[in-house]
Amino acid sequence: MKTLIKGALVLTMEKEEAFCGDILIDRDRIADIQPCLDAEADEVIDARGMAAMPGLINAHQHAPMSLLRGFCDDLKLMDWLDKKMLPAEARMTPEDVYWGAKLAMAEMIRSGTTAFADMYIHMNEIASAVEEVGMRASLTRGLVFLQPDGGRRMDEAMDLVRRWSGKAGGRITTMLGPHSPYTVPPEPFREIILLAEQEKLAIHTHLAESKEEGIKIREKHGRTPTEYLHQLGLFDRVHVILAHSTNLSRRDVGLLKGMRGGACHNPVSNLKLGCGIAPILDMAEQGVTVGLGTDGAGSAATLDMFEEIRAAAWLQKLDYGDPARLPAAEALRMATAGSAQLLDIGRDVGTLKAGKKADLILVDLRKPHLQPVHQIHSLLAYCANGADVDTTIVDGKMLMRGRRLLTIDEEELLREVSARAKRIVEGI
Amino acid sequence: MKTLIKGALVLTMEKEEAFCGDILIDRDRIADIQPCLDAEADEVIDARGMAAMPGLINAHQHAPMSLLRGFCDDLKLMDWLDKKMLPAEARMTPEDVYWGAKLAMAEMIRSGTTAFADMYIHMNEIASAVEEVGMRASLTRGLVFLQPDGGRRMDEAMDLVRRWSGKAGGRITTMLGPHSPYTVPPEPFREIILLAEQEKLAIHTHLAESKEEGIKIREKHGRTPTEYLHQLGLFDRVHVILAHSTNLSRRDVGLLKGMRGGACHNPVSNLKLGCGIAPILDMAEQGVTVGLGTDGAGSAATLDMFEEIRAAAWLQKLDYGDPARLPAAEALRMATAGSAQLLDIGRDVGTLKAGKKADLILVDLRKPHLQPVHQIHSLLAYCANGADVDTTIVDGKMLMRGRRLLTIDEEELLREVSARAKRIVEGI
Repeated sequence: MKTLIKGALVLTMEKEEAFCGDILIDRDRIADIQPCLDAEADEVIDARGMAAMPGLINAHQHAPMSLLRGFCDDLKLMDWLDKKMLPAEARMTPEDVYWGAKLAMAEMIRSGTTAFADMYIHMNEIASAVEEVGMRASLTRGLVFLQPDGGRRMDEAMDLVRRWSGKAGGRITTMLGPHSPYTVPPEPFREIILLAEQEKLAIHTHLAESKEEGIKIREKHGRTPTEYLHQLGLFDRVHVILAHSTNLSRRDVGLLKGMRGGACHNPVSNLKLGCGIAPILDMAEQGVTVGLGTDGAGSAATLDMFEEIRAAAWLQKLDYGDPARLPAAEALRMATAGSAQLLDIGRDVGTLKAGKKADLILVDLRKPHLQPVHQIHSLLAYCANGADVDTTIVDGKMLMRGRRLLTIDEEELLREVSARAKRIVEGI
Repeated sequence: MKTLIKGALVLTMEKEEAFCGDILIDRDRIADIQPCLDAEADEVIDARGMAAMPGLINAHQHAPMSLLRGFCDDLKLMDWLDKKMLPAEARMTPEDVYWGAKLAMAEMIRSGTTAFADMYIHMNEIASAVEEVGMRASLTRGLVFLQPDGGRRMDEAMDLVRRWSGKAGGRITTMLGPHSPYTVPPEPFREIILLAEQEKLAIHTHLAESKEEGIKIREKHGRTPTEYLHQLGLFDRVHVILAHSTNLSRRDVGLLKGMRGGACHNPVSNLKLGCGIAPILDMAEQGVTVGLGTDGAGSAATLDMFEEIRAAAWLQKLDYGDPARLPAAEALRMATAGSAQLLDIGRDVGTLKAGKKADLILVDLRKPHLQPVHQIHSLLAYCANGADVDTTIVDGKMLMRGRRLLTIDEEELLREVSARAKRIVEGI
């Protein structure tokens, strides 16, 4: 099966400049990208007036929380968590998690996201949904050690790894997910790092999301959250996704130097929860990879990665009082190549290049808010949004074409989530 | 001509709660809003699954700058202005201004904006475009007094007022536009205020957009930009739109107390140009009306007011470190009722109420990123974007229906702006 995309404005994210060209897809991979290709193909897509770019990669998500979108916004952080989110999540059945994940994937595909990293519960349900829908995902069972559970969560985490690593034609990978410095004491955290080393697994965790976390960890361990994880050896020994990494001192940032993996910036969630501005340019200066993610829709409200791209650029400009900070092309790179490195799939996706997996999107520019086309990176970073994505391709397979989802029955989906969401929050 | 909108989720912005109901439009006005209306109508719109709300009002714009969207982002402020924007604007012909304004209006209508306040040059061209397209607008000739011009600009300003005030069936109003504290010396500023008082005109100006402006005005006049305008008597004597109002001290905010008009917050432009966070909650606390606007697309890049609504909420949450600040409903109110008051058309638009002008939009909620519907204000403020607007009605007339523009030939428009934009920026 060969697909030829003709006449797109191509941003490979390998080179700085965009160019008008064609892309040949052969089964799951990009076969060639050239200004003009005259190849045979089973399907030809006329992409004149559209930009072609790598699919966006959401490096930190809790997909099923889409069921709780907008359910309890604008509350104080602890009211939001303790009185609303935790009681609602406690009511979610495995089936709810499946439909919540599918709702998130419908939104992601419709807004140009091709891969995501997820941390949640009932991960087998999410894996099944990913396999069925056709996205690429790095899945992680969240591990909280506040009460003894006889090892149940760890068993579920390793069960996920054994059942799903490399499955769905290689689209699914797995990590271990010690939840955060404030929910995992030193002993289990060390054990998880050791296990990750032995099993050659990466780790996905949260770091320093809020100022409150910093206070808590200092009270308990006499150090910052970053120092706490550093002292456990996390940054030397395994590949890690550090979600948020919002409240880091200059010294904290220095501790990340040389780490494998990097930080996933979630600017919309950080803004909406009033958590602060992550020092991502400081991190990048230390050679730390920075990717972008949305966090769950329970906090961020939206899974549209275009919002994260511009929010990331805005926050650095605001923080430095300088509009030249984090220019459009760099913010786009974080959401593609950067996030791909965090998911440890950078050799396969994140840029457009012959030989890489065909995970890409077409953005329709023939709209008043995307005209005139002076500078394509600017348009994509500051003006485009998810609704401008016309086509989403993962692993060479079309998941959306002309804004129509091809692997999800949208009517059935909206019916299911509406009924489930109502039941979950009733009386909370 | 009567139109009946059936079964929408109605946010009047008069009451706190949304309800499922019908809206009857009789010619240019809302005749009735009730849970169930059985009126005769020439046209019935099935709005089940949609939210109906007042049209968004963009209280500070430079519409023709849409021709320069994305042309020179990510530059230092003075490079952006002196080396790029000003030379490009100098090349704009009256015809360019007409097409630029039309491009902006196409984007505004498509993203649910029904009225806007504009300050620019060649205002007759903009007025003609507004009359033709059907939007509501407050138009202002920008007045800069850095070089003598023999009174030409003032003549143009008064010509605009005389030719266009109350025209286009009352859709066009006018103001006087002394540009800013740093471009208008005390003498001409005083004269303009006097003229505004005599002619019963309002004033639209910029205030304290950047820190650099504060330094400049202090050097020149020994006071803050806000103190400068206060001393000229601006806040006591006429209705004023204060665009930006970003860098205000606590004392500055106190000086605005009791003013007519209020401040137009432009959070996206302020973020993108690294200008800071306007103290809009402090202003609101002093009883100052706060509205929202985008600023020109040359800086903000987008004219999507949904972006401004959430950016406004985000910035207050960030500034206070508190997610409960500026909740969704309040941010929506700023973009509707707040902005309407700034344009001095609050008695006619800004909320949905029998007797008011029929300026309203329908937002289609039947999409994965807007489901489930737990809390409609949250969905509209944090999840919706311009592309979710299905129908835009101004003065009882449909300007967009089912995402199709009814008063603008979009193909012709995109052809015109593409050619003109290329010519304008060539070699700059």
